[in-house]
Amino acid sequence: MAKVVIALGGNALGNDAKEQMERAAVAAKAIADLIQAGNEVLVGHGNGPQVGMIKKVFDEGEKQSQAPNMPFPECTAMSQGYIGYHLQTAIEQELKSRGIKDRPVVSLVTRVEVDANDPAFKAPTKPVGGYYDEESARKLMKETGNVYAEDAGRGWRRMVASPLPVDILEKDTISCLIENKRLVIACGGGGIPVIQKDGKLVGAEAVVDKDFANAKMAGLVDADVLFILTAVENAYINFRQPDEKKLGEISVAEAKKYCDEGHFAPGSMLPKVMAAIMFVENAKGKRAIITSLEKAADALQGKCGTVVVC
Amino acid sequence: MAKVVIALGGNALGNDAKEQMERAAVAAKAIADLIQAGNEVLVGHGNGPQVGMIKKVFDEGEKQSQAPNMPFPECTAMSQGYIGYHLQTAIEQELKSRGIKDRPVVSLVTRVEVDANDPAFKAPTKPVGGYYDEESARKLMKETGNVYAEDAGRGWRRMVASPLPVDILEKDTISCLIENKRLVIACGGGGIPVIQKDGKLVGAEAVVDKDFANAKMAGLVDADVLFILTAVENAYINFRQPDEKKLGEISVAEAKKYCDEGHFAPGSMLPKVMAAIMFVENAKGKRAIITSLEKAADALQGKCGTVVVC
Repeated sequence: MAKVVIALGGNALGNDAKEQMERAAVAAKAIADLIQAGNEVLVGHGNGPQVGMIKKVFDEGEKQSQAPNMPFPECTAMSQGYIGYHLQTAIEQELKSRGIKDRPVVSLVTRVEVDANDPAFKAPTKPVGGYYDEESARKLMKETGNVYAEDAGRGWRRMVASPLPVDILEKDTISCLIENKRLVIACGGGGIPVIQKDGKLVGAEAVVDKDFANAKMAGLVDADVLFILTAVENAYINFRQPDEKKLGEISVAEAKKYCDEGHFAPGSMLPKVMAAIMFVENAKGKRAIITSLEKAADALQGKCGTVVVC
Repeated sequence: MAKVVIALGGNALGNDAKEQMERAAVAAKAIADLIQAGNEVLVGHGNGPQVGMIKKVFDEGEKQSQAPNMPFPECTAMSQGYIGYHLQTAIEQELKSRGIKDRPVVSLVTRVEVDANDPAFKAPTKPVGGYYDEESARKLMKETGNVYAEDAGRGWRRMVASPLPVDILEKDTISCLIENKRLVIACGGGGIPVIQKDGKLVGAEAVVDKDFANAKMAGLVDADVLFILTAVENAYINFRQPDEKKLGEISVAEAKKYCDEGHFAPGSMLPKVMAAIMFVENAKGKRAIITSLEKAADALQGKCGTVVVC
């Protein structure tokens, strides 16, 4: 039996409420497999498409004076309620259908502390929310001091910082719930980012990478395994080249070397491998597994997936 | 020492994120007073203005094909994240400023089960979301089967059912967290309404009255006191008439009599008194207190407020 943190991708959860409920039911099967095999499971999840959708609809509403300004941390908080409700209901249903009745599922509003001096705040690079034309974007930049930039030919968008997670504020409560045999859903969308300011916690206009946040959470609750779920079964080196090689079990040293050599795509596989390193580095006996949702149970038995070990 | 459930009004939390954070800080003082006096506190809250704002912004976005359809239960789930995050942060801050460090605050996504056969589903009366002209509303009614009606001369709006709460699905987890000395925020907006359908839980297009939901939650966690906070310090009979009388401690029998005699405004004081009755009826030694946020600590000591006892 292992204590397992699963980082589900936000992309795997679809683009609207109906899709999300259906996809949550698929994710629930993989999670129930792990529970049925006797593991303790803590579920984290991304929120890229969802928080983008929420931010965009409020941005548009605000432009038309029909909605108040909705800051980014509040949008992430909304996405935690929206996604948590669906995941919780789907996982409970799947467990019930398998006769597992002693594992209530609970979703926690989760805040992640970031450092106000994180260099990411000086160079926001993560596009979020609605699209603007250049003139409107430049006007908003002047008015608000926020950063806007052209996003892949599709228009101008707000860019927010993606700082590293320093602490998960609900860590003790998460541990308490795990000890009390709850399946916890926490740290949605990488957590609601907050910074210390004049002795108070205030929301930060940022989005924390969900794999980094889950690696931090996995460390804080002393998990044995961190699952980073993605669309593929393995990470590769020399990807799509004649000498392409599927990665099985690799050491932290090897993983670092491959990162340095540029084998992994930034914004895609690279942060996943970096999050895996973050979790297992200096943590003997721990494993970070990068694989697909469908292969999670097999990967835990060492049958597949890319596994980073200390 | 008492186990206290506080039902905060959604109206007391303002109309945008900035206002909400300020108002949450005010509510936090009253809550910290109760904690400091040695009580265990469980916080419930309304979400009328907030869920209305979220539903409206999605309705408008959908009309303009810029947002997916967002069903009502999902909007309530979002409001739980949005309000929970602010309340949690504000209460923690207030406790910290008073040197109370052993009481972590946690917000739970909370679902409330309602009966699919509740007569409220046949006669939806609660206006929610954006405004439409009559033609658009009638078209939507035909297309969706949902009910729309004219709302107080301001335009046509969607009407949803307001069924009674049957169960709070997170009750065991809430109790577990209280036993572990957490200050829990739960049942936001009366909870996310769900019904049993073909052996599955599905979201219900409804909104549960937050005072009824909190009365149900207070009963399920075996609370001693239910606070129903509102804009006034007391309920009155013969309100604004020459023989107006402020109500102090009254029995369930008296409270029922006053309800029957029409002393309380429907949609305002009446559901509060009915929720108070719901909690204390057949529950010897329990109290439901209707008062203002500012007077909560005094009212707990019997100095003010309208108190319904068994």
